[in-house]
This record gives sequence, structure tokens and C-alpha cells, in this order.
Amino acid sequence: MNPPTAPRIKRLLLTGAAGNLGRVLRPRMKRHCETLRLSDLAPMDPAGEGEEVVPAALEDAAAMLALLDGVDAVLHFGGVSIEKPFETVLPANIVGAYNVYEAARRQGVKRIVFASSNHVTGFYSQGETLTPRAAPRPDGFYGLSKAFGEDLAQFYFDRHGLETVSLRIGSCWPVPTDRRMLSSWLSYDDLERLIVAALSAPVVGHSIVYGMSANRSTWWDNTPSSHVGYRPEDSSEPWRAEVEAAQPHVDPSRPEVRCQGGGFVVLGPFPFAGQE
Amino acid sequence: MNPPTAPRIKRLLLTGAAGNLGRVLRPRMKRHCETLRLSDLAPMDPAGEGEEVVPAALEDAAAMLALLDGVDAVLHFGGVSIEKPFETVLPANIVGAYNVYEAARRQGVKRIVFASSNHVTGFYSQGETLTPRAAPRPDGFYGLSKAFGEDLAQFYFDRHGLETVSLRIGSCWPVPTDRRMLSSWLSYDDLERLIVAALSAPVVGHSIVYGMSANRSTWWDNTPSSHVGYRPEDSSEPWRAEVEAAQPHVDPSRPEVRCQGGGFVVLGPFPFAGQE
Amino acid sequence: MNPPTAPRIKRLLLTGAAGNLGRVLRPRMKRHCETLRLSDLAPMDPAGEGEEVVPAALEDAAAMLALLDGVDAVLHFGGVSIEKPFETVLPANIVGAYNVYEAARRQGVKRIVFASSNHVTGFYSQGETLTPRAAPRPDGFYGLSKAFGEDLAQFYFDRHGLETVSLRIGSCWPVPTDRRMLSSWLSYDDLERLIVAALSAPVVGHSIVYGMSANRSTWWDNTPSSHVGYRPEDSSEPWRAEVEAAQPHVDPSRPEVRCQGGGFVVLGPFPFAGQE
Amino acid sequence: MNPPTAPRIKRLLLTGAAGNLGRVLRPRMKRHCETLRLSDLAPMDPAGEGEEVVPAALEDAAAMLALLDGVDAVLHFGGVSIEKPFETVLPANIVGAYNVYEAARRQGVKRIVFASSNHVTGFYSQGETLTPRAAPRPDGFYGLSKAFGEDLAQFYFDRHGLETVSLRIGSCWPVPTDRRMLSSWLSYDDLERLIVAALSAPVVGHSIVYGMSANRSTWWDNTPSSHVGYRPEDSSEPWRAEVEAAQPHVDPSRPEVRCQGGGFVVLGPFPFAGQE
Amino acid sequence: MNPPTAPRIKRLLLTGAAGNLGRVLRPRMKRHCETLRLSDLAPMDPAGEGEEVVPAALEDAAAMLALLDGVDAVLHFGGVSIEKPFETVLPANIVGAYNVYEAARRQGVKRIVFASSNHVTGFYSQGETLTPRAAPRPDGFYGLSKAFGEDLAQFYFDRHGLETVSLRIGSCWPVPTDRRMLSSWLSYDDLERLIVAALSAPVVGHSIVYGMSANRSTWWDNTPSSHVGYRPEDSSEPWRAEVEAAQPHVDPSRPEVRCQGGGFVVLGPFPFAGQE
Amino acid sequence: MNPPTAPRIKRLLLTGAAGNLGRVLRPRMKRHCETLRLSDLAPMDPAGEGEEVVPAALEDAAAMLALLDGVDAVLHFGGVSIEKPFETVLPANIVGAYNVYEAARRQGVKRIVFASSNHVTGFYSQGETLTPRAAPRPDGFYGLSKAFGEDLAQFYFDRHGLETVSLRIGSCWPVPTDRRMLSSWLSYDDLERLIVAALSAPVVGHSIVYGMSANRSTWWDNTPSSHVGYRPEDSSEPWRAEVEAAQPHVDPSRPEVRCQGGGFVVLGPFPFAGQE
Repeated sequence: MNPPTAPRIKRLLLTGAAGNLGRVLRPRMKRHCETLRLSDLAPMDPAGEGEEVVPAALEDAAAMLALLDGVDAVLHFGGVSIEKPFETVLPANIVGAYNVYEAARRQGVKRIVFASSNHVTGFYSQGETLTPRAAPRPDGFYGLSKAFGEDLAQFYFDRHGLETVSLRIGSCWPVPTDRRMLSSWLSYDDLERLIVAALSAPVVGHSIVYGMSANRSTWWDNTPSSHVGYRPEDSSEPWRAEVEAAQPHVDPSRPEVRCQGGGFVVLGPFPFAGQE
Repeated sequence: MNPPTAPRIKRLLLTGAAGNLGRVLRPRMKRHCETLRLSDLAPMDPAGEGEEVVPAALEDAAAMLALLDGVDAVLHFGGVSIEKPFETVLPANIVGAYNVYEAARRQGVKRIVFASSNHVTGFYSQGETLTPRAAPRPDGFYGLSKAFGEDLAQFYFDRHGLETVSLRIGSCWPVPTDRRMLSSWLSYDDLERLIVAALSAPVVGHSIVYGMSANRSTWWDNTPSSHVGYRPEDSSEPWRAEVEAAQPHVDPSRPEVRCQGGGFVVLGPFPFAGQE
Repeated sequence: MNPPTAPRIKRLLLTGAAGNLGRVLRPRMKRHCETLRLSDLAPMDPAGEGEEVVPAALEDAAAMLALLDGVDAVLHFGGVSIEKPFETVLPANIVGAYNVYEAARRQGVKRIVFASSNHVTGFYSQGETLTPRAAPRPDGFYGLSKAFGEDLAQFYFDRHGLETVSLRIGSCWPVPTDRRMLSSWLSYDDLERLIVAALSAPVVGHSIVYGMSANRSTWWDNTPSSHVGYRPEDSSEPWRAEVEAAQPHVDPSRPEVRCQGGGFVVLGPFPFAGQE
Repeated sequence: MNPPTAPRIKRLLLTGAAGNLGRVLRPRMKRHCETLRLSDLAPMDPAGEGEEVVPAALEDAAAMLALLDGVDAVLHFGGVSIEKPFETVLPANIVGAYNVYEAARRQGVKRIVFASSNHVTGFYSQGETLTPRAAPRPDGFYGLSKAFGEDLAQFYFDRHGLETVSLRIGSCWPVPTDRRMLSSWLSYDDLERLIVAALSAPVVGHSIVYGMSANRSTWWDNTPSSHVGYRPEDSSEPWRAEVEAAQPHVDPSRPEVRCQGGGFVVLGPFPFAGQE
Repeated sequence: MNPPTAPRIKRLLLTGAAGNLGRVLRPRMKRHCETLRLSDLAPMDPAGEGEEVVPAALEDAAAMLALLDGVDAVLHFGGVSIEKPFETVLPANIVGAYNVYEAARRQGVKRIVFASSNHVTGFYSQGETLTPRAAPRPDGFYGLSKAFGEDLAQFYFDRHGLETVSLRIGSCWPVPTDRRMLSSWLSYDDLERLIVAALSAPVVGHSIVYGMSANRSTWWDNTPSSHVGYRPEDSSEPWRAEVEAAQPHVDPSRPEVRCQGGGFVVLGPFPFAGQE
Repeated sequence: MNPPTAPRIKRLLLTGAAGNLGRVLRPRMKRHCETLRLSDLAPMDPAGEGEEVVPAALEDAAAMLALLDGVDAVLHFGGVSIEKPFETVLPANIVGAYNVYEAARRQGVKRIVFASSNHVTGFYSQGETLTPRAAPRPDGFYGLSKAFGEDLAQFYFDRHGLETVSLRIGSCWPVPTDRRMLSSWLSYDDLERLIVAALSAPVVGHSIVYGMSANRSTWWDNTPSSHVGYRPEDSSEPWRAEVEAAQPHVDPSRPEVRCQGGGFVVLGPFPFAGQE
């Protein structure tokens, strides 16, 4: 890996530090800041050198205000990261996102890297190529909450000058494991490159970038966000033969194959709150 | 007024029936349906002939499920309709919109006319003309909640086939009273025409239409939604001389003059929940 | 009706003169030319004053060459005008169109008005608004043959300077009779206006215009072809109440309701040539 | 005529007051301001009531600075208005435009209505329809100087907040007299409406509007500048029969017929300065 | 060469197997399928292992139906591949394409890779860069027939779910031999990569991709079809010095130099059928 | 460096030969022509082998006519290359550009490579990515003069067939030295590659290309000018760590940081001619 560089940030906050991507990012982000503040509702490993560990719930506005104190930039990876009933997504991803942004505004934070998701546009076909300007077609409550987060980021930039790069993250796993991920895969190294670019670009306003590696095929064209400076270096290609052998046939007439959101587009509807 | 026609709907639900526009619509919508079900949290006049009055809170999922029972189409005008703190907007406009859509899905409702708002795009300049394809630039929590509602509508169409026309309503008042409203004004008669078009167009998927009269100047071009069939007949022009005389000078360097959202763009920030 | 004017053409050829639209156009076009040459394979009324009647088959190249002799402009309305098996569409609409264009080139004709069809784009949804720049999505072999004709027209302009206005005609009937036609209807008077505009615009290259009246709702936006100068004056609106009463409910989940092409999109497949 | 209204301007400057359009505008603009300051290099009628007559050369920077003193808004119609050698166009239209803008900035003028020209885009085909976003394709030095003026206006807005509406004026004559003008004609009444709209729109930044009447055919679509609020009421149509009779045939293979700029596209090249 | 991989197809049909590209593809495609069925009207080498050789005429519908029996995917490279009179192009490329698609539908084939051509857009200038969304501007009857094939493919996808990737092939030769081919060249290895991508992308609907190598200069931007996953690895650059030396000067005022279609744009017109 | 090739030009003129980029280009361009004619107003080194040195002022039309005599192609790098008062920019960049083009037309020159500048679009935000189709938003008189030059080039192509590639050069320096230049840097080797591509592409009409290296982040997307064939090989990346260390923090609320034009956007206004 070509280690990316960026101006070291004094105090960088990572929310969702106990989550899948949070745990991947924790050791990697240390080299890009002096102090890495880590927060989650779930248990986290104790603070190492240059780390601060602050348990907090995203839906707790006061806790968020405290959490953002003294912070220079935020990687907002906290919240629900898979499709769940609206009642579950609401406090973590909608109220939580608001709390983070409002606290950031009050604490004078200058930039947020927001973990949005490709599920914001999950109902587009895999037979078309989107740019970050594509209008949302969320494929579930999770995607809907991420669309909300992007609009929130746009508002805080327009109204308060707080800058955000929203990352519409594809499939961020150790390796690609199915046909869909040959297109949507984002390697951990490329995720780091993407975050470093998002933190170090001098001016971003509110920019949206799809988070994928330099895969041979992809549904996303980041050209309109070239100013962010993300250049992936990995690719799903080395896993292609293996993946195609394991899943030689797919049926494009099925929504979960046809749509970019994959299996998410057929999840739910979940039981109706308070009824069942 | 040229009275618009539409196939009469068996049972039409109007939420927000006690609100400003709800009270305007109540007598007008009667001629477009056999039964008009009216709902609000605030007190409403007793049911007249062909009316059903059902008090209910939007944030009460069970009440919404009951409210939507037997309904053929919905005019969702309920919720907060001005800029308010996020904590106020959240239950009424975000949870409420979800409850309405989820109940509509469960009750088999086929179409919703959603009262969105021009404040979804309030941070664009008055010096540019937008189409309904313009990406959201909400000018506050109210606009943000309406952007959420539009994305929700898109999701329920893509996932469940429930159709919506989202109306990005301008300034719907008896007459235009300031310079901004010369561009953004929507007469009550044109509001009715817009709703009738939205209810009667055979196919709408999720379509977005700006709600304005045939004003001489406007910031919005509805051409990409011509299929909805809205043709305004009124205009702010008769009030122009009076309005311009009362407000001869405006300063385009001030955000509330420059931005389409007008005064909304400088409201807030509101006190932070649980802190002050 | 506001009678349209145009520079009188010396000799104007109308193909398909015995067809539905041909019979409508025959008396109307007389006032726009000195001599109206009429041609069809089917029987035609005898030539009146200022008329020439020339029976000919479109697939007969030699006959077409003779037919175009001395002609100044052509209204090419001949050929199959409904969905038919490919074997039927091929000679009349594909070979026939070629024969007409090639003969026009050889005879020095300067302009052709080509009766294309909305079925060139019939697979788009009625929930979207197209411009003439929309890529073809034909809804059958008829629509496919009209897409071929448009490409042929483009080629003869690029290669030989022969100008064409392709009319993507909607539903050209005496009155609109169903919900679809409330959007797609083209009155006979507006058809004449459209043809006169197409003949009299000084420069058209190859331009495409949708043929519809000034209906309240429509799926087509002719703005990019404003230079052709077509301004419809009729509307389907007077028939709306009657049509909506007769067909109050439509189901947008059915392809023939959802797609612009209407019933055409579910016709066929026809028996396979030489097999069944 | 429907007399347009606008907030009365205290002191309005009209440059080019002795020119063709200047003389048309002089009596008309009086009702839109308290004092109309008139300037030209050529002789002007003496000042009437509410008028100030100030002879000045556009290329005289000091004179321009004095001329703009006390002015609230400017109609910049001065300079060369037909195709001329570059040496003639340069001082009047390039240096002159700079002098006017720089003086306006120094004197605190808030808005300029700039008489640009359709010749900025004269090399586009009459067989296509442009919006104000079309990139310049000037058809001569005159058109080139107007493109310069538009860029200058954009710069003074971006850098200094000085707003401009650039009018790409078509053929502004008493009546349309040839086939080209059936599309490009701008009536004097519509010119006045256009100027009043440009002066009274609350926010314009730098906006570009084509100046044409509501002609049946046109090459220009002002929709992206709907915010300016120009609604033409006249049309070339009443003159169509007469014009078409006088000029029944045009040859679209000739550049002056094919191009929007008409005869301008074949003028020049003029003798080379200092050589011939 | 980096050997491309794809899920092995059980039976793959290659039409035009005796043609220039057919002979190139025959040995290459073997590794991507279990059985390669080869068809042409012209003589072919006898079937090798894993091959089936089936002579057939494209215009013979019954033969096509038999040919497609048991086939999983088709590479439709058959037909006329250079500019020819319409009468020659018609049976092979128009009737033939219909026969192949109709037979594919009846036999349940899921995907076709269609050898379209850059001559579909040959009348665009070499001074502009197109995407696959560019409207057709065919440069002859050959290009016209390929535009027809693309529309046919769109129809069979919209109506019957049969997927196609249309390859607008540039200049597919062993090496680039003239200035035009420095931009339009497609190496044989890249052709194979393109076909493998087109066969193995899980979802393509009807997608269009220009077939060119990673040449330094090119007129085509495949970004909107990134989902197909074609990544060329070759380039015309190694031949540049040689080609430029052999053809140092070209005259862009000549149509065959200026237009993307090269020499095709000045071929014909051919003698008129049945006349000469 | 991969030495670029191009057909050798018989006589190539380089204006501005004594300027910063002129001195860089002088030795490099020799290998691309037989005779390199060098011109400037400032002193130049004596002519070496294959060189001609011709002192001349751009604003001297007769001198320009003589200078262009016998020339096959021009690299027009002369004139003012930084922000200066309008009075300084005018003769060199506006009159000068006209003189060069008019002389080129008269002398039959076929192609000009015009050193335009990123300052033509300097008022766009660094938070957005532009294509060469972006409308001008010049950041000063220098940028304004370059926008004029581009329009002039368009005119001379449309009217006289004289081809130009306009290079919107970023920051062409030995190495990148600040945060802005990490995006805008153009290496000298890439400048040469760009010029060679611009000279050797067979057809360019008037094309615009941004001049930047293959930097990780950039504000410009040259895809619509892929036909020019510019492929940068250098990057600012090796200097990133050093640059970011030296300038770790930038404030995007300041115009000179936020805008692409950098420091240029806050220069001036200069003293008003004839006043101070």
C-alpha cells in the first residue's frame, strides 16, 4: 500500500468506533491525527496512546455536545449500518446525525466525513452508471436515513459553513465475496485513502463521493467530485475468477440482482410499530 | 375560476385539516370525492355532509393505521409548516410522514399528494431558475423534513408501487404581500388545480411539482413534470404595483433577499435540546 | 380555427393519401400548394382541381422515383400505421421510407415532413416528460420502423442536405376517447398547423417534434424544437370530464397504462415468419 | 399594450441615447424613473422635464466616471451596434464597456441592463433552439465585443456584487421585414417589458435573456432565466403572410440563411488595420 | 496480455464466423464457453473440438430459429460490415438482425453481444467527444442498419427482457495504419476483453459501449457504460510515430477527415435499385 | 519522461518567447519543428540553429502580419500573464490576440495553440469540478482577456476555418509550492505533451483543454476534449507531504482559498485610468 498522507489533525473524532468499519479505522486513523477520540455505545477497547475513549449514545444530544468538545474534525461512522425497522433507524441515524451536526456547529468543528451509503441510490439498476449528482432512490429505511444525513450536511454547509464529504460507501469488506461486490467493493486501504482525501482537500463544501475501489466494472462515476482527490488503488479483479466460479449465474429479472442495492431492495416491510 | 374536474374519489383523506391550507382545502375538495375524511390534532369543525372528522396525531402509528383504513387517496398536509426547532419538526414531519406512508401501504392506498415545500431548495439563489430535478438545498429543519418526505415517497413508490406527487409549495396565501411572493405566490384556486391534477393524472410514479401560480417571474420551471398536467391560471401580477410600491428597494446582498427561501434562511439556530 | 399560412408550395406530394390521416389532410393541404399530388396503394377518390392522383407502392423503387418527379416537398404519411408483424412493416415502412428518401434525393426535393410516431418512444413511462432528444425506446415493430425512418432522415440531411421534420405523432383522432388520449391527443387542426410549420420554417436540418395539441397534461416537451414554430391551439380539456367519467380508474401497474405507448406495448409477439 | 410597472428608479442612465434603440427608449423609460440621464456621443434632443442630457464618449474613462455619478441604474445601449472592423468596435464596445462598469463600481451603481446581442451566438444554426446557457459563437467583431461585455458583467458581479441582466437582443425594429425576423423580432413594447423586468427583478446576479417577442417560431428558449420575469406579449405572426409572400424561398445551404446571425455571418473580413 | 475471465458459457453462438472479426474471435472465444457454435453463409473451417459449425443465412428466419436452439448467449457479428447499397444491407443487417433477435426470444436466449459500429455516429466531427448516449448520425446504409439493430435490441429488452450490449466498434485491425485509427483503433485483445465484459456483467439491460483501445486520443467516452466493466489495455500509441510519418498532413476541411466516420461519409450514393 | 512525438512542423511560431513559459518551451519545441520562430517584445537570446528570432509588439498589427508570414502553426503565449490593470491587459492581450488571429488568417496559418488560463473560470469554487464547457467566470482583467481570446478563436474557426486549441493553463511551475497547486499544477513535461497533442490532433475545430498534470485531486475534467489526446504523466503527489507540512491549514471561508482562481480573485481594483 502506498501510505496516504494528510496534514495531521489535532483531535479527530471517530463515531461508531466499535462497529465493523470503526474497528478497521481505529488503528489506521492514528497516523493522521495527534489525538484520536473514539466513541460508540457498544464496548470499545481501552484507550491506547494518543487515544481517548468516550462511550456515548448518538441520540443523547447533551452527550454529543460534550463529545464534540475540542474536536477538529469528525468521522461520523456511528449508527445503524444495515437495513432495520424505521423505529430502530430513527434514533441512531436521524436524531443521531442531527445531534452530531448541531454539536459540531456549536463546538466550531470545521469538517465532517459522513459515512453515507450506496443504499441512498439502491433502487437504480445495475445496468446504469451514476454520478454523485444522481437523485436519491433509497432502498430501505437505512438508505433513507443516509439520504437525510446528506441533506443535513448540505444544510449545515449552506447555513453555517460546516463542510462535509459524504461517502456513499459500497461494500467495504476484507475481500469481495459475490458478483455484486465485484462492482461495489471498497478495500480497507481505499477506504483509508478516501477518508484522507476527504479530510485533506482544502475546499469541499458539501461533496458526495461513492466509496469503491478501482474495480473493473462499477456503477458509479466520481468524476464530478474529482476535487476531493480520491484515487483508489485496489481492485476486485483478483477475486473475480473465484467469485464468478462460485456464483456463475445470476438472474437479472430478480430485483435483488437488477438493483444496485442488492439484497436490501427486497428486505422488509418490517412489522408495523405498535401493531404487531 | 375555471372549475377543475377529476374522477370523483370514493374516500379522500386530508391530513392537517385544521391548518391554514387544510381549512382552505376542506370546502374545495368536497366536490372531488364522495367522502372527505378530515384529520388533525387541533380542533376541527364538526363533520358536514359527506365528511368524516377523525382527530389523530401523526406521530401515533396506530392512529395513522386506523385513519388510513378505507381511504383511496391522501392529501398529506399535516405537520409543522413553518421553521421550528428540530425537536418539534421531528415527530410531526419525519415520524409523522413515515407513519402515514406505512399505514397507506398497509391499507392499500394507491396515491398520496404530499405537501412538500419550496424550502427543500431554499438555499438556491433567486437569480436562478430550478426544475423539480434540482438537488435539495434545504433552508432549515422544516425544509429538511420535507426533503425527507420526498425521499420517503420515492422509496414507497420504488419498493411498494405507492404513487406520490410531491408539491413544493411556494407562498400559498390569499394574495401576494411582498416582493418575494411576486415570484413564489400560489393562489388558492391554483392550489386546488394542482391537487386535482396530481390526483387525476393516470401515472405519476413519484413526481415533484413546484406549487406556484402563473406569475410573471418565477424561480421554478415545472416542464419536466408536464405529465402531471398542472396549468396555473392565476398570477401575482395584479398585485405587483401595490407590492412594489410598499417595498421598492431590496438588497440582494442580504441572504434573506438573495435566497429563494427568503426569511427562512436566516432563522435559527434554535436553542440546543436539553442544554438551554 | 386560426387558419395557418405558409408560402404556397408549387407541387406537394402526400403519400398515404388513402389512409386515415391522408384523407384528413387531402382537403386541408390544398390551400398550401398549387398542385397536390396524392399517392397510395389503396383506392383514392379521383383527382379534383389542383390535384394529381398517382397510385404507387412504397416498396416499388422505380414507382417512387417517378412519383417524386417534379415534387417540391413531401408529406410522407404512407405505410403501415399500426402495430403489425415485422414482415408486414418491413416493405412498407423500412424499404418504403428508403425508396422515398432516395427518390427525393435524386429528384432534388428539398424537404420532407415525415410522419413518425410517439411509438418510437413508447416504452417510457407516462410518469415522465420527454423532449425530442429522448433516445428511442420503440414499443413494437411499427415504432421500430419509425425510429429507422428518423435515422434515415438524419442521414439524408447530413449526407445530402435534404431537410426533414419528423413528427412523433400522438393520437390524431377527431376527439380524445380515453385517458391516455387526454395527454397524447392531436387535433386535426393542430396536425395541419404542425405540418404548415414544418413546411415553412426556413431552416430545419433534421428536427423532431412531438405531435400533440396544447393538452393540459402531456408527456412531451417540444421546447428544443421551438425553431420549427409549432404552436398548438386545441386541447383535450373539453373532453376530460366525459373521458374520466367513462374510464374513472386505471391501474398504473399494468404496462399498457404505465407506458406512453399504451396498448401497443403488450401487442405481439406475432407468429414467427415461415414457422407457424 | 399592457403598460409594465416597476418601482420607479431615482436616476436612470441611458447610454446610446441617440441611437436607434436609444431614441425608442427615451420617451418610454421616463415613466420608470424620476430622472432620466441621457448620454451619447452623437447629438441628442435637448433635455425635457425630468431629463438630463450629458454628451460623452464611452472610451473616455473620466467622462464615464462623471456620467455615472448619482446614478442608480444603467441601461447600457451605447456603442457600435452593427458589424464593423475590430478597430471601430474596440474603443466603443470593449473599452467603453469597461469604462462603464468600472465607473459604475466606483459610483456604487447597483444594476446594469446591458444591451448584448443575438450575434453573440450567431454561428449556431437556425435549425436548433438555444438557451441563455449556450456558449458564445460570435458571428463577427460586434458579436465578439458583446460576448466580452457579458463576461465583464459576470466578473463585476462575482467580484463586486454589481448585478447585470444581459439582453441578447434579436431584431428590434418597428415590424419584422424578412423571414429571419419572423423568428428574431423584438417589438419595441416587448423591449420595454424586457427592460422593466430586468430592472425590477429583486435578484438577478448576472443573468442572460434573449430579447425576442412571443413569435410563433424562435431559436431561443429563455426558460433558464424565468426568474427575470420577462413575458413578451407581441408576436411577428401578423406580418407572416406579408413577409412570406415577399420572400417565399430561402436556401438553407447558404450560411446567411442557415445561421442564426443571418447576414452578419458573411460580412468582412475588413481591411487589415494599417495595411490597406 | 492479461487473459480476461468470465463464467464459462455452456453454448455460445458466434454469427459471422467466417468474417474478419469472426475468424479473430473463433479461437479466442473457445476458452469462454463449453461449446462454440459457429455460423456464417460463407465457408468456414471444419468444427474442432468443442465447436459446432452451422452454415446459415441471416435472412432465413427458419434457419435462424434452428441455429439459436440450445444457445445460451450470442455474439452477433454476422452481416455486411462495410458500406454497401441499401439493397445489400437490408437482408443481411436489417432482416437478419430481426431474425436473430426473434429466434433468440423464442429460444429463451438471455443475452446478445451485438456488433454495432462507430458508423452509427459517423457524421459527428472528430473535434468532439461523444458518449454512448449520443443520438445516431449514421454515415451510410451500413451505419443506418446498425442504428436499427441497436433500437431492435432496446425493444427486445424493454418488451421481452432479452439483454444486449451493443458494441460501437471502431477500427478493429491488427495494427492502426492511418491517422484516424490512432483514435479509433481497437486491438484484437481489447475486442476480446470487451466481449468478455459484455458477457459477464451481471446486469446490462441494453447498454452501448464504444469499442476502442486505450488510445491517447479518442472521440468516445464510455463512462456512462462503466457498469459493463470494459477496461482496455492496449493503445495505438506505439504506432503513432510511424503513422504520423506516413501521413503527416491531413486537411480537416475535407469531410472524410473531419467526420468520425472517415471515408465512409463520402461513399455512395450507389446506383438506384432497378433503375441503373 | 516519455518523449512525445508529433509530425514535424515546417515553421512554428512561438510568441512570448522571452516569458516564463516561452523560455521553457523554446528548447523543447525545437524537436517538433524544422524552424522555430521566436518572438517577444522583451530581449531574447540570439537565434540558434533552426531558430529565427523576431522582436515584435503584439499590438503592432503590421508587425504581426509580417511575423506570421511563412508560419505553419502558432503557439500564442505572448502578452500579459498575470493580473494587471485593464489598461495594461488591453493592448497586449486583447488587441494583441486580434492581431495574431487576423494575421494568421491572412497568412493562411491552419492552427493556433492559444495559452488561455484557468483564470477564465477562476470564480468557481474549489469544491466543484468543471469541464471545458463551463461558462466563463473570469477572476480579473487577465482572465477576462483570455475569455476574449477563446471567443476570438471560436469566431475564427466558425468564420474562417482556422483551428485552435485553447489551453486553460493551471499553475505551470517547476514544482508545486502551495496547497492550491497540488490541484492546479502543470509540469513542464506535461505542458509539452499538451502542446504536442494540440498540434498533432488531426481535427480540433476550437477545443478547450485545461492544462494540469495527473494530480490526485483536481477541479477540472477534460473528458469532453478527449479527442485532443492529452494524457498527462506527472503529478503533484510527490510534493504533497512537503506542501501540506508547510501550509497545514487553510480557511475555506476566504475567497482566495475557496475560489479556483486563488489569490487572483482578491487582487485589484486597480487605480482608475486617468483619475489617479
